[in-house]
Amino acid sequence: MSTGISAKRLKIVASQPEEKLDWKKRKAERKESKKQTKEAKLIKQLEKQKQQDTADGENLEQSQNKKGRAYTVSVALPGSVLDNAQSTELRTYLAGQIARACVVFCVDEIVVFDEQGEDVKSVEGEFKGVGKKGHACIQLARILQYLECPQYLRKWFFPKHKDLQYAGLLNPLDSPHHMRIDDESEYREGIVLDRPIKQGKGSLVNCGMRKDVRIDKQLQSGLRVTVKLSKTQSPESKICKGAVVAPHLPRTEAGLYWGYSVRLASCLSAVFTESPYDEGYDLTIGTSERGSSVDQTSLSPFKHLLVVFGGLQGLEASVDTDQNLEVTDPSVLFDLYLNTCPDQGSRTIRTEEAILVSMAGLRPKITAAF
Amino acid sequence: MSTGISAKRLKIVASQPEEKLDWKKRKAERKESKKQTKEAKLIKQLEKQKQQDTADGENLEQSQNKKGRAYTVSVALPGSVLDNAQSTELRTYLAGQIARACVVFCVDEIVVFDEQGEDVKSVEGEFKGVGKKGHACIQLARILQYLECPQYLRKWFFPKHKDLQYAGLLNPLDSPHHMRIDDESEYREGIVLDRPIKQGKGSLVNCGMRKDVRIDKQLQSGLRVTVKLSKTQSPESKICKGAVVAPHLPRTEAGLYWGYSVRLASCLSAVFTESPYDEGYDLTIGTSERGSSVDQTSLSPFKHLLVVFGGLQGLEASVDTDQNLEVTDPSVLFDLYLNTCPDQGSRTIRTEEAILVSMAGLRPKITAAF
Ligand SMILES: C[S@@+](CC[C@H](N)C(=O)[O-])C[C@H]1O[C@@H](n2cnc3c(N)ncnc32)[C@H](O)[C@@H]1O
Ligand SMILES: C[S@@+](CC[C@H](N)C(=O)[O-])C[C@H]1O[C@@H](n2cnc3c(N)ncnc32)[C@H](O)[C@@H]1O
Repeated sequence: MSTGISAKRLKIVASQPEEKLDWKKRKAERKESKKQTKEAKLIKQLEKQKQQDTADGENLEQSQNKKGRAYTVSVALPGSVLDNAQSTELRTYLAGQIARACVVFCVDEIVVFDEQGEDVKSVEGEFKGVGKKGHACIQLARILQYLECPQYLRKWFFPKHKDLQYAGLLNPLDSPHHMRIDDESEYREGIVLDRPIKQGKGSLVNCGMRKDVRIDKQLQSGLRVTVKLSKTQSPESKICKGAVVAPHLPRTEAGLYWGYSVRLASCLSAVFTESPYDEGYDLTIGTSERGSSVDQTSLSPFKHLLVVFGGLQGLEASVDTDQNLEVTDPSVLFDLYLNTCPDQGSRTIRTEEAILVSMAGLRPKITAAF
Repeated sequence: MSTGISAKRLKIVASQPEEKLDWKKRKAERKESKKQTKEAKLIKQLEKQKQQDTADGENLEQSQNKKGRAYTVSVALPGSVLDNAQSTELRTYLAGQIARACVVFCVDEIVVFDEQGEDVKSVEGEFKGVGKKGHACIQLARILQYLECPQYLRKWFFPKHKDLQYAGLLNPLDSPHHMRIDDESEYREGIVLDRPIKQGKGSLVNCGMRKDVRIDKQLQSGLRVTVKLSKTQSPESKICKGAVVAPHLPRTEAGLYWGYSVRLASCLSAVFTESPYDEGYDLTIGTSERGSSVDQTSLSPFKHLLVVFGGLQGLEASVDTDQNLEVTDPSVLFDLYLNTCPDQGSRTIRTEEAILVSMAGLRPKITAAF
């Protein structure tokens, strides 16, 4: 079973310290660019590992509980959408809109794919700094992860970083796993603390409560974990009792929405081929004003739904730049290719709007499928 | 029949020149505040007149054309939503999000209501300047009108104004009545030009085309008009031929979405009582997470649908501050009180998000009603 270790990645994505731009600029840039390459690789590796953990866990303990939700919903979009923002503040705000849209509709995974076919170039070339064009995929992924992380854990996993310069403008996600200090909850997200552990005892975890939590295992400090708190706690004790569980458990056992994981994909096809779920996605939907009407569509039951959005130029552009894809018509890549807003009153719906509109259109169809 | 004069209001809303803050500040402020009171009154009067025109026109010529759309959709929300924005730029951006959400779903009227019960105070008191709290209703109305106005008419109707200081950040509406210079269209929005007119001839109108349009009537210069261009035009002539029509004609005859009108209401109840439609709204929907599920709802056919959204504190707060309303439960005000996003993954959906989510949920139900 998975240990529920869910956020090594967070530590790494956040590990790059704030840049000092006025110090030997050239050297710093080269160093920066190397760091970024490494970072991008690590994000990928660790996301993969984490999601593999998640997927493994699920196979083992199929939720038989009625309250639980067995299926997952993933959303994919190109990081280039950030480049449409008209200011550096709005770039951050846009990332926040995407995070919120996904949370409102209980999306479990957000995949940020590169549709410019230049991910390698863009991290090895000259560092462009926050807010400039390029660097969009990593910045979007970082802001999405930052927002997903419960506030009380952010100081550990997200030290200052230029990508997060305008994080103060971001609207909170207000999702169920973002607990306030006195909220009561069976599950909580926490960080394993760096404290001496006695033999035979588990590690201490900070879960954002007044007391720390003693878990059932000894784990490396600094890991982000999902903790299931014991039903009986002694009010006198200075610590709570709990067990580390797989991060999907709040969803599969209790039907709680527990935030999303973030995955980077180097191109559109990698969204499909690098699925964290062993069986891959078993229902895939592409979105486009040129799709068939969502109104005449019903969904069959699924385990893992993937809904893919295009950027400024639509999914055609994402297909064009993907060297693994021979096709030019994006619709052939998907089980369904849907227009989720027939008779739209604007010539174009922006991606961040399309997520809300499309998920709102699909929500009753997903419900009806089960 | 209506003459199709649709935007005297625009001229007036825009008539306040950019303030010079460094010149006898005090006097200027008092003058400013008087101007605003006058302005607010005029906006109301003229909106009312305009919408009365629209409504009258519709009664006379019920669309029998299959292509036409006979019904209208109105959206109402409190201007106070702007006060939730975290910066002056985001305040403007938020107004733009609302405009776009309404355009995507072909909303014909946007009603901005005051839920703070201090509209009089806020325009007669000290002028607070753009971006500060307060002044929200008028600023929201002005930005909505600015965005609705085709780009080629803005220089006439919207000289520089502090409320529009960040208009450069606004995403365009890209609605069908925002024509580019060479676009072909049966209908166009225009402004009556100040040119000498020969007896027996109509006025000249700038419709954003390479040639001006000679209409069938003599009208006061500076008016905004909807023009139906004649099917036959002589390519040699230096001017086009057209006729002034009611602004609803593109919708009722051709089924085109033709933008929205903007109305200010001094409180929630005025949203209902000051309807521009003679018969009022015949289907009203309130929105709230405490409403009944949209999934179990179907809509009966209607002429004029009104969908009302609350602000930060929901419609309860709007009811509380309305001195005309004795009730405390908003649901009794509406034909339907709907939760448009059952099982939402965030504790709270923001108003600008709720417009997209709710209208996306209602869209297929509206379609099904006809
Ligand atoms: C700015 S739009 C792309 C517009 C582009 N010109 C095109 O023709 O596809 C960005 C994305 O929003 C989504 N989108 C926009 N309108 C949509 C609609 N009516 N139905 C479904 N998805 C839509 C699609 O994923 C699209 O790739
Ligand atoms: C920030 S919310 C209001 C939240 C407020 N605390 C409440 O309990 O109503 C702003 C507005 O968005 C709309 N809204 C939010 N969630 C909704 C839902 N699930 N269904 C329908 N409308 C919703 C309502 O119009 C609401 O007044």
